[in-house]
Amino acid sequence: MSLLVVGSVALDTVETPLGKVDNAIGGAATYFAYAASFFAPVRMVGAVGGDFPEDVLSDLESRGVDISGVEKLSGSTLRWSGRYHESLNVRDTLDLDLGVFADFQPNIPESYRDSEYAFLANIDPVLQSRVLDQLTGPRLVGCDTMNHWIEGARPVLDALFERVDMLVVNDEEAELLTGDRNMVRAAAKILDSGPKSVLIKRGEYGVIDFSPGNVFAVPAYPLEEVYDPTGAGDCFAAGVMGELARSGDLSAAGMRRAIVYGSVMGSFVVEDFGPKRLQSLTMQMIDERYRQFVALTDIPR
Amino acid sequence: MSLLVVGSVALDTVETPLGKVDNAIGGAATYFAYAASFFAPVRMVGAVGGDFPEDVLSDLESRGVDISGVEKLSGSTLRWSGRYHESLNVRDTLDLDLGVFADFQPNIPESYRDSEYAFLANIDPVLQSRVLDQLTGPRLVGCDTMNHWIEGARPVLDALFERVDMLVVNDEEAELLTGDRNMVRAAAKILDSGPKSVLIKRGEYGVIDFSPGNVFAVPAYPLEEVYDPTGAGDCFAAGVMGELARSGDLSAAGMRRAIVYGSVMGSFVVEDFGPKRLQSLTMQMIDERYRQFVALTDIPR
Repeated sequence: MSLLVVGSVALDTVETPLGKVDNAIGGAATYFAYAASFFAPVRMVGAVGGDFPEDVLSDLESRGVDISGVEKLSGSTLRWSGRYHESLNVRDTLDLDLGVFADFQPNIPESYRDSEYAFLANIDPVLQSRVLDQLTGPRLVGCDTMNHWIEGARPVLDALFERVDMLVVNDEEAELLTGDRNMVRAAAKILDSGPKSVLIKRGEYGVIDFSPGNVFAVPAYPLEEVYDPTGAGDCFAAGVMGELARSGDLSAAGMRRAIVYGSVMGSFVVEDFGPKRLQSLTMQMIDERYRQFVALTDIPR
Repeated sequence: MSLLVVGSVALDTVETPLGKVDNAIGGAATYFAYAASFFAPVRMVGAVGGDFPEDVLSDLESRGVDISGVEKLSGSTLRWSGRYHESLNVRDTLDLDLGVFADFQPNIPESYRDSEYAFLANIDPVLQSRVLDQLTGPRLVGCDTMNHWIEGARPVLDALFERVDMLVVNDEEAELLTGDRNMVRAAAKILDSGPKSVLIKRGEYGVIDFSPGNVFAVPAYPLEEVYDPTGAGDCFAAGVMGELARSGDLSAAGMRRAIVYGSVMGSFVVEDFGPKRLQSLTMQMIDERYRQFVALTDIPR
């Protein structure tokens, strides 16, 4: 049930139509660790600079996250600054300073190498492959990526996909990967390239999962206010991987349950800026929203 | 269980990325009648010119559609010509000739006035109101509209909404009606204006239904090819209204079942140009796709 995540740790300055935060805790690995910690013990790999708040790392530790793989380097933490448009689907990067993340090399601690579940958050696919090289035999590997690597590092990505069980991308990335705007055909092409399952995130419309012989669609939870979409995709992946690590159930039903927990975590995190909403969550609230997803989608037989 | 539809009857010339048809059978009332006829006896009100093919009217009659309310006028049938973009969400109207539809006055035949279920397809809201004036006491009234009336006839539309039970619009129309791009808030505003239920169509993302205390989301059926999106919204409404007329069950569960049947009908019609796909359908195929919707969305408890 051990769950490894490798990815960015950051300080984000984010402006949305509902407000602004400066130097909020960010980064895919951080969001993932917070969200997945409700389900399973998380092992986290990343890099921070001297400016990263110590209390965040101890908060994560208190939630059962092993932070021995988070390297503290001299220099500054990755800083990202962005502004979301009214529609929240579009954001502009205003500033990006990679800091210690520029030379990030994922060193998987000895004690992490037997991880059964591993999530490769969006980083250079060369590094994502090196993570897999260091694992002794994970049961399930999940992977994210982005347009930058799809356009600029395709051969490396193709080689990586052959070693990945579950790809988590958004609809634009799926189209970019396959040249096909139809998600049924795009998913079929992605499944042909290696992954056993492809989860396509569609923002406010939810998610659709394709695996051979099985399609599963979950709408997004209808929210009156979305404060900050940052981290929603990472928290979605965290709910999916976390629940799989907790249950160990990789059957079609187990996958469905996991995808709904992913949708639950994605729906919570956007209710406040940064990962703040996750810090006040309880498993009871998570299970209650799971039931609301059932109610939202339940079709009478 | 009598189901009335009032709306346009047309001849469409449609170009999509997958092909083109000239003078295909079109119009909201026609699509609605074809799709609803699987569920209940349909009473159709519209107007055609001398150029409208007789065999289509007899085909509808053979499907249990009462066409005594379809007036045959001297002049030409409404002709619309349009081209869909690659994305299928966007279409350009290339040509529009209203023909006999320009002076269309919905005269509800005496034998139709006791209709229990009535669908007001998208026409001038003044005419939609006049239809209601002629009915003796329908159990459920559904209503469609479009940006043209929302922008140009708002007071008439507002008065109409107070007499309508169920509004069927797409997400752009819901935003235009309320000035709110958030569908939860937009739906709340619409429910405040009269309808007991608002069904928001989201194209390839499915539909979300809001009624007080109940939200129900259904994804679209994942199709590898969409040949022609024309009529999808009308067939959706037809499945909803048809199933409600068939079952008479206006409970929350009955509404959900109807909305899924609506989604089924919308998913079928786009599989070919015009209403052609509907002409080869059977109730068995419809029920089979209903079960596929259950499989697509089923969340393990």
